[in-house]
Amino acid sequence: MKTVSGFSKMSKTEKINWLASQFQGKTAEEVLTMDRFWHPDAGEQSRFDEFAENTLTNYYLPFGVAPNFIINGKSYTVPMVIEESSVVAAASLGAKFWQERGGFHARVVSTKKVGQVHFLWQGDKKVLKDFFEDNHATLLESVSSLAENMIKRGGGVSSIALLDLGRELENYWQLKMEFETCDAMGANFINSILEESARQFQALIKTNDLPAAEIIMCILSNYTPDCAVEVFVECPIDKLGTFSNDMDARTFARRFQTAVEIARIDRSRAVTHNKGIMNGVDAVILATGNDFRAVEACAHAWAAHDGQYRSLSSCTLSNDTFRFSMRLPLALGTVGGLTTLHPLARVSLGILGHPSATELMQVAAATGLAQNFGAVRSLVTTGIQKGHMKLHLLNILHQLGATDKDKENAKKYFADKVVSFSAVRQLLQEYSETRN
Amino acid sequence: MKTVSGFSKMSKTEKINWLASQFQGKTAEEVLTMDRFWHPDAGEQSRFDEFAENTLTNYYLPFGVAPNFIINGKSYTVPMVIEESSVVAAASLGAKFWQERGGFHARVVSTKKVGQVHFLWQGDKKVLKDFFEDNHATLLESVSSLAENMIKRGGGVSSIALLDLGRELENYWQLKMEFETCDAMGANFINSILEESARQFQALIKTNDLPAAEIIMCILSNYTPDCAVEVFVECPIDKLGTFSNDMDARTFARRFQTAVEIARIDRSRAVTHNKGIMNGVDAVILATGNDFRAVEACAHAWAAHDGQYRSLSSCTLSNDTFRFSMRLPLALGTVGGLTTLHPLARVSLGILGHPSATELMQVAAATGLAQNFGAVRSLVTTGIQKGHMKLHLLNILHQLGATDKDKENAKKYFADKVVSFSAVRQLLQEYSETRN
Repeated sequence: MKTVSGFSKMSKTEKINWLASQFQGKTAEEVLTMDRFWHPDAGEQSRFDEFAENTLTNYYLPFGVAPNFIINGKSYTVPMVIEESSVVAAASLGAKFWQERGGFHARVVSTKKVGQVHFLWQGDKKVLKDFFEDNHATLLESVSSLAENMIKRGGGVSSIALLDLGRELENYWQLKMEFETCDAMGANFINSILEESARQFQALIKTNDLPAAEIIMCILSNYTPDCAVEVFVECPIDKLGTFSNDMDARTFARRFQTAVEIARIDRSRAVTHNKGIMNGVDAVILATGNDFRAVEACAHAWAAHDGQYRSLSSCTLSNDTFRFSMRLPLALGTVGGLTTLHPLARVSLGILGHPSATELMQVAAATGLAQNFGAVRSLVTTGIQKGHMKLHLLNILHQLGATDKDKENAKKYFADKVVSFSAVRQLLQEYSETRN
Repeated sequence: MKTVSGFSKMSKTEKINWLASQFQGKTAEEVLTMDRFWHPDAGEQSRFDEFAENTLTNYYLPFGVAPNFIINGKSYTVPMVIEESSVVAAASLGAKFWQERGGFHARVVSTKKVGQVHFLWQGDKKVLKDFFEDNHATLLESVSSLAENMIKRGGGVSSIALLDLGRELENYWQLKMEFETCDAMGANFINSILEESARQFQALIKTNDLPAAEIIMCILSNYTPDCAVEVFVECPIDKLGTFSNDMDARTFARRFQTAVEIARIDRSRAVTHNKGIMNGVDAVILATGNDFRAVEACAHAWAAHDGQYRSLSSCTLSNDTFRFSMRLPLALGTVGGLTTLHPLARVSLGILGHPSATELMQVAAATGLAQNFGAVRSLVTTGIQKGHMKLHLLNILHQLGATDKDKENAKKYFADKVVSFSAVRQLLQEYSETRN
């Protein structure tokens, strides 16, 4: 692989050609034919090219839907973008199960966003604190013109505080700001306000003849513990029905509750438990053009907020009621960014009835809880492999180029057996030999 | 939205038609035309449909590349799938910067995977512990036939331990197993072995006339703290060059180090700092058909392993050397699952020279560190908004349907001004009025 200069300035085709020229054989050929994933309409394609840099083609992820969600009494078909098999199936199963038992109940705690101006300042701490008291209103006022549009929509800067963190790091201070960004994720708004606040803060410090502050950085925080949704499902234990192998409702409830409790106390289990929740949440995040890295970072940091990493969801059995619930911090937008620019994010928001950010937060959290319910239900009843293996078998059969007839026969054969690549290959060989 | 039965059994077109029938006007029309994102080749499309359930179409994510990565002396162009603007640019910038300064150095700590059989057992604890000692080898032996293929490839079950967790939850025990899965992520392998181990364990308990164990669940853990990469860049401080606004190398190094230290001590900053690392890591994960939810959950839980959520990367300045490093737990595969099935994951692996899982772990970690370097570098020099806003401006211009000429003029106009949607709209109106 050679060093390349000016790569970002090349056209898409020049980039592909350069990359292909670094290889021989199959890889060169595969790189050259990446254009088969371009949208046939060049105008539509150019839109996708502009989302990121050095774009060569489109990566396809399956766009599916989970129907039959009832959330706060309203019916939804939830758009889900996810490459992992069984996630949409588990969410759909969870949705259908709870549809007949009152559906999902969700409420938004708040939509408070956070930003920080990190700076170093050396001097008499009381002087800076007094200065901040005196100039607090002036500082807020000085950034209000930037916030004008957000204020019109009902948002803006909610608060600004001066934090002395000198015990952690010498001379380290923060301006910690809170924001209301309405239906936008608001990253650009927040970062612009923060940078402007830092400039104005420095100017005010100068006017007041204080020692200068060294601004280290200005940036929003993705840790938004109060920008959160509470979601739950509940029903009388004896209305849970029966499960596979004649497991009764009470046994199921107890086993389910034990599994969730294990995820509360055991970190190794908690990570996978929460990963399952995020399977559902992220699928909605991706489908609606939101940022899954931001959501992931916040959710997992929140899972460790008491000093031990724990499950995000919890389950109680009291007064003969099964209740499965979760508090999930979740900062989402339904305007701005990709939500508006990505044609399929637009379709997703259309399918959801053009929700506000708070409504979307509730849908995403409910999908996460549905997925978690479906996964834990599988784990404590049939085991996870039965469902996974069925899908795994289909993938192996596809990969080995099995005929439709062989696929049908193999599905029957593996109904009660452990699926492995070699076992499938051997079976297909036997089928083939029988024919010859 | 109506309740629907048998949705999963419908054909793709039937699903789309049903969904469209739930809406009127624009949403109905947009749902009906989701097929414009289908691959023109029906065979190729059917492959994507099978990855997940209830698939309607393909969600496009931009597939880009970051050239000029040097990792352990080898040159790479790194495939990145990410919808967020500026991530590929920051990674490319980080790669190019370090290319001239020795590149990235990475090593894999281990590739140890983890699985757990969670069970309840009531009785004399010493009896179960002794039983486990005596039957430990038999238990391992009893699942060896399932592991046959993995053993041939150099992997298999590495260890099995009995954990007494009764202090946390009454009668709660674990069989904790460790696995080597070579170039596979190994989820199906691990889960199959765990379920079989549980069956064999129960059978052995029965044979030995012990009280029965109630298996709650068997599942791999995505918390793999030892399946990790260490990656670093380093160079003499005075070889760092100069930065914007004539910032010298020493000032840059000190500010950069302070920013990373802030992310170590302040949770709100740590979340966004790590989110930036995962921007780079996840882009490689997606491009290579790996599972980003697993990687995210593990990385963030690891970030909180000492009881406080902290930055994953760290920076030291000693002996006049700038060193920026990270230990990142990362369980990846380059065979099996989507890595083989997704045609673009295959292209990605081709571009990377068909790496082993350990080589891919190093590439993904280096990309994360490069992205983190690029982001923190922006933050402590020009501020993050300068770069973001340039891309934000392009998106707004596109959204407002600006002509190429207007785009050029607007870019010049906003070179030294704060970009906002309303300001761009106003400028375009002025351009338009000037023309009329």
